[in-house]
Amino acid sequence: MPTTTPASIEVETHAATEVVDITERVAALIDGAAGAACHLYLRHTTAALMIATGEMGVPEDILDILQTLTPKREYRHDSPAHVAAHFLSALVGPSLHLPLRDGKLGLGQFQRIVLMEFEGPRRREIDVRLLAEA
Amino acid sequence: MPTTTPASIEVETHAATEVVDITERVAALIDGAAGAACHLYLRHTTAALMIATGEMGVPEDILDILQTLTPKREYRHDSPAHVAAHFLSALVGPSLHLPLRDGKLGLGQFQRIVLMEFEGPRRREIDVRLLAEA
Amino acid sequence: MPTTTPASIEVETHAATEVVDITERVAALIDGAAGAACHLYLRHTTAALMIATGEMGVPEDILDILQTLTPKREYRHDSPAHVAAHFLSALVGPSLHLPLRDGKLGLGQFQRIVLMEFEGPRRREIDVRLLAEA
Repeated sequence: MPTTTPASIEVETHAATEVVDITERVAALIDGAAGAACHLYLRHTTAALMIATGEMGVPEDILDILQTLTPKREYRHDSPAHVAAHFLSALVGPSLHLPLRDGKLGLGQFQRIVLMEFEGPRRREIDVRLLAEA
Repeated sequence: MPTTTPASIEVETHAATEVVDITERVAALIDGAAGAACHLYLRHTTAALMIATGEMGVPEDILDILQTLTPKREYRHDSPAHVAAHFLSALVGPSLHLPLRDGKLGLGQFQRIVLMEFEGPRRREIDVRLLAEA
Repeated sequence: MPTTTPASIEVETHAATEVVDITERVAALIDGAAGAACHLYLRHTTAALMIATGEMGVPEDILDILQTLTPKREYRHDSPAHVAAHFLSALVGPSLHLPLRDGKLGLGQFQRIVLMEFEGPRRREIDVRLLAEA
């Protein structure tokens, strides 16, 4: 039975920083669905969604490189680690759009949908919508 | 009366760099509107739109961290500060998508919509569209 | 005749790193099309799509600054250059949304649509969809 939206996906993370591949869960949820694109929206400010290669080890390398972007300095707010989590969440962003082809995710061959956890462990909620073709 | 789109929001910035929280303006504009998602699009190349936490001081910290990403080096074009503004605008991006739930913005509890000004003061225009559910 | 989607754009890149302005190709493809927004989706993990100023030299400066974001360190996967290409592709992202106004691209005056090649030369495919107004 084709999905209708709004729908949502819940993800439990298990470490302070972590990559969680949610491709199969999104694919299962939208299988057979109508529409031109699928919109994923993460309702949190210390994690983010990315499209990244699934090649062994690379998503974890990407998470490590992201951590290097946040200088260890004085912040207005709280601890450097907490500000860094907020910064990376805002920079990478909470929103992804994926094209649909005949009711399937139209990802490229090596593309995976990943949740980047910057301040876990937490329970994360992702809103899923199907957008209509014009 | 529910909004129809296209609509737009104008923002006046007052400093060279500045964070402007536009959440309430977007919420008021789309209140009661139909559709699955709201698309915001900033028509400028030296500012950007972000979803960030509203926690005290953090959006300003995020703006400061962004500034550290642009090295002080020689550029093909113009001054380092001008290139930095263009770089950050392109990196952060001009486009946001927000899910709608029953005619309201479906943001997470701590999420705010912010305009990041990288080369103000300027008058900034944001295009607002409602996208249909499939 | 107005375009219908799905449609796609193919881009051949000619160097290891390169900026390719695809604005005119997108504009020609969607000329007269219906819908509220145009969704571009790049099906690759070592390139990305950006909205950037078209001012002389700045897109190339942006590409150079992006390269500085990836530290020369040990990675789990492969060579630093290959990981850097994957990182920048994931950070910048494969997806763009452009508002439509009366069947034309609603870009700002100085905004251009660019493909950023991080590991060329390659043949790149961009999926184009039109999204319906609510």
